[in-house]
Amino acid sequence: MKIRTIQLYPDRPDVTLTTYLLDDSRETTQGKKRPAVLVCPGGGYLFCSDREGEPIALRFAAMGYHAFVLRYSTYGGNRPDFDMGSPVETPDPRSIFPTSMRDLGLAMLTLKDHADEWLLDADRIALCGFSAGAHNCAMYAVSWNRPVLVDHFGVDPERLRPAAAILGYGLGDYVRLHGEARALDPFAARLQRSASIALFGVEEPDDATLEQLSPARQIGPHVPPMFLWTTSEDSLVPSTQSLVLALALAERNLPYELHVFEKGSHGLSLAVQASASSRAEIDPDAAKWVELVESWLTKRLALDLPEKPFWMA
Amino acid sequence: MKIRTIQLYPDRPDVTLTTYLLDDSRETTQGKKRPAVLVCPGGGYLFCSDREGEPIALRFAAMGYHAFVLRYSTYGGNRPDFDMGSPVETPDPRSIFPTSMRDLGLAMLTLKDHADEWLLDADRIALCGFSAGAHNCAMYAVSWNRPVLVDHFGVDPERLRPAAAILGYGLGDYVRLHGEARALDPFAARLQRSASIALFGVEEPDDATLEQLSPARQIGPHVPPMFLWTTSEDSLVPSTQSLVLALALAERNLPYELHVFEKGSHGLSLAVQASASSRAEIDPDAAKWVELVESWLTKRLALDLPEKPFWMA
Repeated sequence: MKIRTIQLYPDRPDVTLTTYLLDDSRETTQGKKRPAVLVCPGGGYLFCSDREGEPIALRFAAMGYHAFVLRYSTYGGNRPDFDMGSPVETPDPRSIFPTSMRDLGLAMLTLKDHADEWLLDADRIALCGFSAGAHNCAMYAVSWNRPVLVDHFGVDPERLRPAAAILGYGLGDYVRLHGEARALDPFAARLQRSASIALFGVEEPDDATLEQLSPARQIGPHVPPMFLWTTSEDSLVPSTQSLVLALALAERNLPYELHVFEKGSHGLSLAVQASASSRAEIDPDAAKWVELVESWLTKRLALDLPEKPFWMA
Repeated sequence: MKIRTIQLYPDRPDVTLTTYLLDDSRETTQGKKRPAVLVCPGGGYLFCSDREGEPIALRFAAMGYHAFVLRYSTYGGNRPDFDMGSPVETPDPRSIFPTSMRDLGLAMLTLKDHADEWLLDADRIALCGFSAGAHNCAMYAVSWNRPVLVDHFGVDPERLRPAAAILGYGLGDYVRLHGEARALDPFAARLQRSASIALFGVEEPDDATLEQLSPARQIGPHVPPMFLWTTSEDSLVPSTQSLVLALALAERNLPYELHVFEKGSHGLSLAVQASASSRAEIDPDAAKWVELVESWLTKRLALDLPEKPFWMA
């Protein structure tokens, strides 16, 4: 495996792409290109959580896919000492939409530019995000062929197309989220307020902005197949957010898969010890999303393997 | 993750230890030491199979364990161009027992020497081998406190003790294997003959040598807990080899777990696409050994996690 951290802009040490490139071998891929999964950790656009970075990349690498972790633009500048609990008052233009989504576009172009060098199948790159990272991936999945990305990069939209999107406890509809009365503890309420200022620049964005950042309201045939999962007990990003996204896909007869586990709070990541900060984030039921996504991915991203081993050919 | 390949002897580029060291984070391990899994690929003591190296290490890394791949002494000197199908006639002292087992001892000491630097729990290192690599691990598991290792390294035997051994389609009893009539195809018969010359130095070793290299005949209370798995259809290393090893453990009331899947040929590794050279080596039933070993490992190697996340403390 080749691990390298690439700074995506010369003047931005905070925005990085870390590669987890699997070795080629005459016993396995024999020089053939592998599909890839590009991971966006969550963290309320305030930081990028380590719990949703390397552990996720390694789990996809263990499935046979090249994996990448993108640390996109966040309010905290991805500084290791950023305190996610401290309230945010002043917006920072570096974290306001669409910067993080454009970071994802640049990461996608970087993968496609290195397809030959990395033995990477440029037509089979899936996105995988969690919480705010899932929102970033979902926004990208509805926007990849639009001027906000195409004109910005000046490329053929096909170069920006993702093959699939995997969204864990994501945000799908900000209009609905801001309209819902929810009982949040003081920590969660502060986090949500800070996240709004980080992403929108204001605590209470206008309706047009909320609509613009609601992927569930922008679903069309250009959207790639989606795999959604969450828990019914999530009080920070309610499961309604995944449900309305699934509803929008289902109404348009677009391929999707959805798993809502009953138990489990927000931010379970893999729901196993590898991604846990405590035993409260281990849940064998919710952890089944990984097996489910492994099966789902092989329907469209499976490695191109011969029928029989080479020593029997 | 930190990946580095370490040459274990100054004059032996063929014997290497590759590290897959997980990142520490204030969100996960918070400076605490992780247990580790040390992987020995199979390959009939002729080579070390890539299919049982990196894919295995990454799967254990995805469980939250530091992982290592040992390329131990083999007849082919781990040269990438070695043809495993070409018959072996002349023995090479570098692959004859106990060199490969001592390589494993040196790897174990290397892990324990770097425990502080690598944030590695020296008391919780599991071995994991496949086929010939499983035989190497099993021989080590019965020999770690004996002169062949202790006097050779001149260390306190406790420094060599493994915490557990995971053995996939391994060789447990050479006396029995050589006594059993088996219908092998010409390729398999040549492989077995070559493997004998590589490990014993001769095609037909005497009874004392066969006994000496049969871990099932040397089980005692010093042997660590074992997890065994194989398939009933394995014609190269029959499932009887795992059964007699389990029998020896059961008769002494030692902790072990055994899973024999009905279907599947020799050498399935993870039995998923990540370790396959062809679709013939993918088997969703046999692949369940990985989930089973994940549960089994958490009984003795679980990460030391607090009850609640630090932001709720």
